[in-house]
Amino acid sequence: MRFDETYSGKVFIGSHPNYDESKAVLYGMPMDWTVSYRPGSRFGPNKIREVSIGLEEYSPYLDRELEDVRFFDAGDIPLPFGNPEKSLLEIETYVHTLLKDDKIPMGMGGEHLVSLPVMKAVASKYDDLAILHFDAHTDLRENYEGEEYSHSTPIRKIADHIGPANVYSFGIRSGMKEEFEWAKEQGMHISKFEVLEPLKEVLPTLEGRNIYVTIDMDVLDPAHAPGTGTVDAGGITSRELLASIHAIAASGVNVVGFDLVELAPVYDHSDQTANTASKLMREMILGWVK
Amino acid sequence: MRFDETYSGKVFIGSHPNYDESKAVLYGMPMDWTVSYRPGSRFGPNKIREVSIGLEEYSPYLDRELEDVRFFDAGDIPLPFGNPEKSLLEIETYVHTLLKDDKIPMGMGGEHLVSLPVMKAVASKYDDLAILHFDAHTDLRENYEGEEYSHSTPIRKIADHIGPANVYSFGIRSGMKEEFEWAKEQGMHISKFEVLEPLKEVLPTLEGRNIYVTIDMDVLDPAHAPGTGTVDAGGITSRELLASIHAIAASGVNVVGFDLVELAPVYDHSDQTANTASKLMREMILGWVK
Amino acid sequence: MRFDETYSGKVFIGSHPNYDESKAVLYGMPMDWTVSYRPGSRFGPNKIREVSIGLEEYSPYLDRELEDVRFFDAGDIPLPFGNPEKSLLEIETYVHTLLKDDKIPMGMGGEHLVSLPVMKAVASKYDDLAILHFDAHTDLRENYEGEEYSHSTPIRKIADHIGPANVYSFGIRSGMKEEFEWAKEQGMHISKFEVLEPLKEVLPTLEGRNIYVTIDMDVLDPAHAPGTGTVDAGGITSRELLASIHAIAASGVNVVGFDLVELAPVYDHSDQTANTASKLMREMILGWVK
Amino acid sequence: MRFDETYSGKVFIGSHPNYDESKAVLYGMPMDWTVSYRPGSRFGPNKIREVSIGLEEYSPYLDRELEDVRFFDAGDIPLPFGNPEKSLLEIETYVHTLLKDDKIPMGMGGEHLVSLPVMKAVASKYDDLAILHFDAHTDLRENYEGEEYSHSTPIRKIADHIGPANVYSFGIRSGMKEEFEWAKEQGMHISKFEVLEPLKEVLPTLEGRNIYVTIDMDVLDPAHAPGTGTVDAGGITSRELLASIHAIAASGVNVVGFDLVELAPVYDHSDQTANTASKLMREMILGWVK
Amino acid sequence: MRFDETYSGKVFIGSHPNYDESKAVLYGMPMDWTVSYRPGSRFGPNKIREVSIGLEEYSPYLDRELEDVRFFDAGDIPLPFGNPEKSLLEIETYVHTLLKDDKIPMGMGGEHLVSLPVMKAVASKYDDLAILHFDAHTDLRENYEGEEYSHSTPIRKIADHIGPANVYSFGIRSGMKEEFEWAKEQGMHISKFEVLEPLKEVLPTLEGRNIYVTIDMDVLDPAHAPGTGTVDAGGITSRELLASIHAIAASGVNVVGFDLVELAPVYDHSDQTANTASKLMREMILGWVK
Amino acid sequence: MRFDETYSGKVFIGSHPNYDESKAVLYGMPMDWTVSYRPGSRFGPNKIREVSIGLEEYSPYLDRELEDVRFFDAGDIPLPFGNPEKSLLEIETYVHTLLKDDKIPMGMGGEHLVSLPVMKAVASKYDDLAILHFDAHTDLRENYEGEEYSHSTPIRKIADHIGPANVYSFGIRSGMKEEFEWAKEQGMHISKFEVLEPLKEVLPTLEGRNIYVTIDMDVLDPAHAPGTGTVDAGGITSRELLASIHAIAASGVNVVGFDLVELAPVYDHSDQTANTASKLMREMILGWVK
Ligand SMILES: [Mn+2]
Ligand SMILES: [Mn+2]
Ligand SMILES: [Mn+2]
Ligand SMILES: [Mn+2]
Ligand SMILES: [Mn+2]
Ligand SMILES: [Mn+2]
Ligand SMILES: [Mn+2]
Ligand SMILES: [Mn+2]
Ligand SMILES: [Mn+2]
Ligand SMILES: [Mn+2]
Ligand SMILES: [Mn+2]
Ligand SMILES: [Mn+2]
Repeated sequence: MRFDETYSGKVFIGSHPNYDESKAVLYGMPMDWTVSYRPGSRFGPNKIREVSIGLEEYSPYLDRELEDVRFFDAGDIPLPFGNPEKSLLEIETYVHTLLKDDKIPMGMGGEHLVSLPVMKAVASKYDDLAILHFDAHTDLRENYEGEEYSHSTPIRKIADHIGPANVYSFGIRSGMKEEFEWAKEQGMHISKFEVLEPLKEVLPTLEGRNIYVTIDMDVLDPAHAPGTGTVDAGGITSRELLASIHAIAASGVNVVGFDLVELAPVYDHSDQTANTASKLMREMILGWVK
Repeated sequence: MRFDETYSGKVFIGSHPNYDESKAVLYGMPMDWTVSYRPGSRFGPNKIREVSIGLEEYSPYLDRELEDVRFFDAGDIPLPFGNPEKSLLEIETYVHTLLKDDKIPMGMGGEHLVSLPVMKAVASKYDDLAILHFDAHTDLRENYEGEEYSHSTPIRKIADHIGPANVYSFGIRSGMKEEFEWAKEQGMHISKFEVLEPLKEVLPTLEGRNIYVTIDMDVLDPAHAPGTGTVDAGGITSRELLASIHAIAASGVNVVGFDLVELAPVYDHSDQTANTASKLMREMILGWVK
Repeated sequence: MRFDETYSGKVFIGSHPNYDESKAVLYGMPMDWTVSYRPGSRFGPNKIREVSIGLEEYSPYLDRELEDVRFFDAGDIPLPFGNPEKSLLEIETYVHTLLKDDKIPMGMGGEHLVSLPVMKAVASKYDDLAILHFDAHTDLRENYEGEEYSHSTPIRKIADHIGPANVYSFGIRSGMKEEFEWAKEQGMHISKFEVLEPLKEVLPTLEGRNIYVTIDMDVLDPAHAPGTGTVDAGGITSRELLASIHAIAASGVNVVGFDLVELAPVYDHSDQTANTASKLMREMILGWVK
Repeated sequence: MRFDETYSGKVFIGSHPNYDESKAVLYGMPMDWTVSYRPGSRFGPNKIREVSIGLEEYSPYLDRELEDVRFFDAGDIPLPFGNPEKSLLEIETYVHTLLKDDKIPMGMGGEHLVSLPVMKAVASKYDDLAILHFDAHTDLRENYEGEEYSHSTPIRKIADHIGPANVYSFGIRSGMKEEFEWAKEQGMHISKFEVLEPLKEVLPTLEGRNIYVTIDMDVLDPAHAPGTGTVDAGGITSRELLASIHAIAASGVNVVGFDLVELAPVYDHSDQTANTASKLMREMILGWVK
Repeated sequence: MRFDETYSGKVFIGSHPNYDESKAVLYGMPMDWTVSYRPGSRFGPNKIREVSIGLEEYSPYLDRELEDVRFFDAGDIPLPFGNPEKSLLEIETYVHTLLKDDKIPMGMGGEHLVSLPVMKAVASKYDDLAILHFDAHTDLRENYEGEEYSHSTPIRKIADHIGPANVYSFGIRSGMKEEFEWAKEQGMHISKFEVLEPLKEVLPTLEGRNIYVTIDMDVLDPAHAPGTGTVDAGGITSRELLASIHAIAASGVNVVGFDLVELAPVYDHSDQTANTASKLMREMILGWVK
Repeated sequence: MRFDETYSGKVFIGSHPNYDESKAVLYGMPMDWTVSYRPGSRFGPNKIREVSIGLEEYSPYLDRELEDVRFFDAGDIPLPFGNPEKSLLEIETYVHTLLKDDKIPMGMGGEHLVSLPVMKAVASKYDDLAILHFDAHTDLRENYEGEEYSHSTPIRKIADHIGPANVYSFGIRSGMKEEFEWAKEQGMHISKFEVLEPLKEVLPTLEGRNIYVTIDMDVLDPAHAPGTGTVDAGGITSRELLASIHAIAASGVNVVGFDLVELAPVYDHSDQTANTASKLMREMILGWVK
C-alpha cells in the first residue's frame, strides 16, 4: 500500500529490496562530531540517495546497468550524537555482520573518521588487505589537539594497524610537515597532488590483492566539490576521479569494500556536489561489484 | 535488515508502518506543471517528511502525542510530468480508494491544483461537505490564459461543483477584481486579509458538518513562508495559523480530509518554511484526526 | 516585432507605454556608492520591475486596478559609478524635467541618498512641502566620517533645506545620540519605534498640504525585509506598512511625489523582499496617484 | 522619454533596435513544463539578457564587435503554462515567420524540448540540414513515461524527422542503454564524453552544409554550469565549449540557426552559469552570424 | 602598528581594550558537538562580533551608549573538538576566573549545553541565584539517547543543581510530554508559548534576587531567527524579545551574568539572525550591566 | 587576558604578532566604490583571514612552513566610503611607510583600483620595477564613462607611469578593442587566454629584476572563483594559478611586493573562492618572501 520507493529518493536508485539476495550493501554513517572546521556531513548519505533519482541506471562508461548488480540499501546506522567512541563501535559491529554474511560493504559518510572502523573490520577478514585512499589531506595525525579519534587521524590509525606499506594515498595536497615525513619514513605511499597517473602505476603491483577504497570528496577540486567541510584548491576534476574509478575497475585488484565520505550538503549549493557523489557511487557499484 | 525508518526522514515522524491499522493516510502529490510564476513545489512532500525528524512527537498545544493517532505515510503518488489532466485523474482515483477504505486523506502538495481532485473525491462521499480554504489568493479564475486546469482555478472548480455557498476562504489578499465580484455574487464566503477572527465566527455555523480543509502555505506572510511559489506581503503569522488549526480542532466540525500545499523547497533558505509546514502538519494530524 | 513587454518584467506591471499621456513616472536611481556597510542597492529598481509580474493588477485593499492609473516606467537614470556628486546632479536635473511636465515623480533606489536631490527638486516646486519619512534610521548625520554626501545624511540635508519642522520620521530605531538630540532641539518630528499610530495622529494636521513620502525598506523588520543593506531588529511588519500607505491614501494630504529605497537584491533570498517592495509600490501608485 | 535600454539588461547587450534591418533575431522560449527532475529554465532567457551587461561587446577570440553584427532581441515568446503541445506550436509558428523574413533564428531556452519545433521549422527550409547537438544527455527517448513530448525526446524526434545520419551529438555521458543502441543501429553520430576532438573530425565532412546548432548547458561540467536542471559530473570546461564554438566559426559550415537551452537561474548561485551562457551567446553571434 | 580594531568586526563594537578596567567580559563558547539535528553554532560568536559594526553604539530604547559601559571582549575560549566533557570543564574553569575577578560573565554560544558550566559557576558564587530561560525548547531531558551531556539537557541539569523552583522558562513550545510533566511536578516555572506577559508577572517576585539570564535564539519565531539549529514555528518577534530585555533592565533584579546561544550562521541567509543577535547583545549589555 | 588570536580567524594564520620583527606586512584595502557591475569586495580581506584557519601552515608544494617567514597582519586600512581619491591617497601613504621600514607590502583587495597607489609607491622605490598582472580583464581603460579612477583603469595608469614595456599581463580574455590595440602599439606584453606557458617564457627575461605581482581573482575560471564581481568564462584552474605562483618562486626575479584583489564574499557560496584566495596567499607568502 506504500508507493514504490525505487524512484522516491529514499533509497539509492536501482537498489534491490532484499538483503539476503544482495551481493553488496549500501549504508550511511551519519557522524560529524569530531570535525575541527565545518560540520554537516551527517546529512551526506541521505542526500546522496535523494539526488540519485536524477541519474540514469545505465553507465555509458562501463556499459552496465544497476539491475545487473544486486545491492541492498540498508539506510543509515543510528549513531549516538557527540560520542565518537560509541559511534565507531556501532559501525565496526555492523560491518562485521555484513562481512560475516559475505556482503560487500559500501559506506557513505559522514566525516572521514567513520572509515576507520570499517577498514578495521575489513582488515580482520582479509589478511592481505591494501588501502587505496583518495583525499586532499594526509589524515595521518596521531591525534588532533589531544583527541585520538578525529577526522584527521583515520589513515594514520589504519596504517598503524595494517602496516604503512599497505596504504596508498592519492591526490594529497594538505597536511603537516610531520605527517609527510612520517609517511616517508614508514614506507607509506603518498602521491602528492596527482591521482590518475600514479594510480595507474600502482595498480599493476596490487594485482590479485584484496583492496579497500576510501574516497574523501575533497580530493576533488573545490570547483567540483564545493559541498564538503574542508575545501582545498588545486584538486582534480570529477572527470579524473571517474577515470580513476574506471581504472580500478579495469585492473586486476579485488575490491572487497569501499566508501565515499565528507559530503556536507549544507555547503553545497543546488546539490552540485551531491549529484556528483551520487554518480561516483553508481560508477563504483557498477565497476567494482562483480 | 533495514535500519528503522521512523527517524530517517523518509516517512513523516510518528507514522505507523501498517496501512490497514491506520485511520488516516498521508500522501504526496508532487506536481507543479501548471504554475504561472515560480515552479518547484513538486519537491514539497518529501521535504516535509525529511525535516519532520526535527519535531517532537508531542504537541504542548494539544497535549497529545503522535503515537495516539494511527496514520500511515504512503509516499508520493507517481504523476506523469507535464500532463495535468492525467495527473489529476491519478490523484482522484487514489483518494477514492482511500475513502472506500475509510481512511482520512491527508495530502501534501504540490501546486494548489492537486487539491481539486481530492476535494471532488471527498465531495462524492460527503453530501454536506464544506470547504475551508486558507490562501493569499482567491484561486477563483475560470481559466488561466485559456487553460482550464491551472493553479489559479481549483477553488473556482470546486465551488462550481459543490456550490459556492459551501466554500469559505480566509486570508485572501490577492486576485482579480472579477474573482472577488464573482464570489460576492455567488454567495461564497471570502475573508479578505483576516483569518482567525472570521474563522471563529464561521466555525459555529458549521457545527456537525463534514469539512475538508485546504491550506496554501502562502496564506502565511512571506516572513513566515518564504519558500513558496508566489509570496505576497501582508499575510498572517505562523502563530495565527497554528491558532486557526487549534480553533478548528476545538470546534464542532468533523474534518474528513485536509491538505497542505505549495511548499517549494528551492525558494526556502535552510528549510525555514519546510520546518513550519512540518509542524503545521503535526498539529493538523493531532488536532483533527480523532 | 518585439513581444509585448507588459508581462516581461522589464517594465513595472501595468505601466503605460506613453510618457505624454501619463500622470506619473516611475524611474530607478541605481546608486549605492556611499553606503558604509553592505552595498548592492544599485540593482534594486530592476529587481522590483522583474518580480512585479507576480502581482495581480488589482488591489483588494483599495478596490482599484493599475489600468485606472496612467503611469510611465522610464527605466533607470544612468549614473556615473563612484561619483556621488555627479550622480545627485543627474537625478535632480531629471526630476526637475518631470515636474516641469507635471508628472508625479515615483522613484526607486538605490541607497537613501538618492532621495535628497528628488526632495530638493520637489521642494523647489511646492513651497509648503512636508516630508513623511519611514526608516529604521535617523539619516540625520551632518556628515559620515567627513563625507557630506552619504546614505546617513539625506534627511538632515533636506531638513536643513525645508526646515526641520516640516519633516516627519516614523519607525526610527537606530541613530547616534546627537542625531536624536538635534531633531528634538530643532522641532523635527521623530516617532521612535512606532509607525501607524503616530502617522494617524500626524496626518490630520497635514490636511491639504503637499507631501513627499520617502520609504526606506529597512523600516520593516528584518523578518519582512532581509534584502536590504542595514537590517535592524525590532521593526514593523509589511502589514503595518501597507496599512500606513492606505492611511495616507485615505487622508486629506496631497502626495506630490514618493520613493522606495534600499532594496538590495543580493541579500534577498528568493526575492522575498523584492516581492514585498513590488507590492508596496503597486499600493502606493494605486493609493496616492489620483 | 525612456532611458536607453542598451545597457539596462532588458535586451541582450549590443542588440539592434530594429527588426527589419537585422540579420538575426534573438528570442526566448520560457518553457519548462515537461522536465522530470528540477524545473526553472523558464527564467533562463531573461537572465541571460540581464547579465549580458557585464560583458564587453568585443571578442578578443574572434577580433569582432557586436556592432559588426545586426541582430534584434525580440523578447520572449509568450507560451501557455502547462500546455506543451500549444507551446511547441507557438514556437514553430514564430520561427517560420523569422525564416520567411530571412532572419537567422537564435533561441534561448527553456527546457530542451523547445528546440524541437525550431529544428522542424528550419528543416522545412533547408533540405540538407544537419544538426550539431551538444549535451550531457542523449535526449533520444521515444517517450518519457508515456509522454511523447518531454525534455528527454527532442533529439529522437528530430532524428526521426531529418534522418538519424544527419544528427551529430557531442559530449554525451548519460542516457539509457536503449538510446545508445538505437543511435548505433540508426547510424546517428554520438561522441561519448568528448567534444572538441570529435567535432574537429566531423566539421570537415560537413563543409558547405547548412547546420543548426543546439547547445544544452549541461554539456558543461557541473563545476562550469551548476545552474541547470540536470547536472552530470564528468563534463567539459567552458574553455572547451568556447573553443568548439570557435572551431565551428572557423569551419566551412553554414550556420542557419542555433540555440542555447536549459539555463535554470534558481539553481545558479550568483549568476555564475548565467554569465557563462551570456558569453557563449556573444561568441556564437560573433562567430556564426556572418 | 596594527590598525584600530574597534570597527574591524574582530571585537564586539564598543568593547574596551583593557580587561582589568572592565566591569564585564564578553567571551565565545564555540561548541556544537552534541547537537542532534543541525550543527554549526560553533561559528556563532565570531559572527556576532563581525556584524556588530553595523550597529550604532547608542540605544534609543535605553538612551545609553556603549562607551558608558566598560566591557572587555576576550575572544573565544579554545575548546577541544568532539569532546563535550573537557569542553564544559574549560568553560567552567574560565568563568570561575571571571567571577573571582568580579567580572560579569557575558557568554556567546555555541549550542545551549555551553550555558550549563557557566550557570554552575555562577551558582557557586550566588546562593540565591534564579535562572531566566528564554527558549522554544524545554531542554529538560535527563539524557539524550543515553548521552547525559546534550544540547537537550542543560536546563534539567541546572534545575537539579539549584532547585527547579529557581528556574523560570519562557516561550517554550516544544518538548517531550515527560519534560512538561517533570517541570510541573517539580514546581519549575514554564510559560508555554508566551514571553513578555508572564515575564512581567514574574519579575516583581524576583526583586532584589541575583539572576542569570540565558537566551536561546530559537525562542524567536523562525521568521525572526532562521539562522539557528532547530527552528520551531509559532515563536515571538524580535520586538517582543527586545521588550523583554528592557523589562528585565527596568525591574529590580540584579543580573549577574547572561548568555545568548544557538546562532548558527550557516543557516542564516545574509546574516539576518546574526544582526539581530548582535543588537540583542548590545541591549543586554546596555540594559543589564549597571 | 585575551585568548590567543592565532587560530581565531581575526589575523591570517601564522602571522607574527610584532611589526618590527617582521619582514613583510599583510594589509587589507576594503574599497569597492568604483566598480561598475557587482560591488562587495570591500569585505574580501577579512574573509581571507577568517577562512585561513582552515589551512595547514605547511606547504607540501614548497616544503616550507609559515613559521619560517615573519610577516605581520596589520588589519585593514580605514578608507572613506565613496571617496576614491582620498582612499587611494591613504593607501599610497601607508605603503610608503611600509617601504621606508623595509617591509614587503602584501595587499588584499578590494577592487583592483587599490593596486594602483601601491604600485606607484613601490615604483618610487624601485627604478627597474616590472609588473606581473594576472587578470581576466585588460584594465587598460583611460577612463570609465568619464571617471579617471575606476576598477577598469589601474593597469593603464601604472603602465603610463612606469612605461608599458614594463607591464606583463597574463590570462586576459576580456577588454575593449581599443585596449588591446593600445597595448600592442605601446609594446606592453599581453598574454591572451594563457597564463603558465607565457609566464615561463617571460620569467627568464626578468631575471634579477624587482617585480610587483598583482593578481585579480577573476583570472581564475568562474568554476574556480565564483566569488568575484565580474566572472568571465574560459579562465584557468586554481591548479594553474598555484603553478604560476610556484614558477615565480622558482625563478630569478625579486618579488618586492604583491597583492590579491577582487574577492567579493557575498557572491561566494560557502566560502569556496575565499578558501582558494587564502591558500593562494599562503603560497605567495611562502614562495616569494625569502
Ligand atoms: Mn579525509
Ligand atoms: Mn580531506
Ligand atoms: Mn492557492
Ligand atoms: Mn496562494
Ligand atoms: Mn534611510
Ligand atoms: Mn535605513
Ligand atoms: Mn538536452
Ligand atoms: Mn542535458
Ligand atoms: Mn535551548
Ligand atoms: Mn532551543
Ligand atoms: Mn582587474
Ligand atoms: Mn578582472
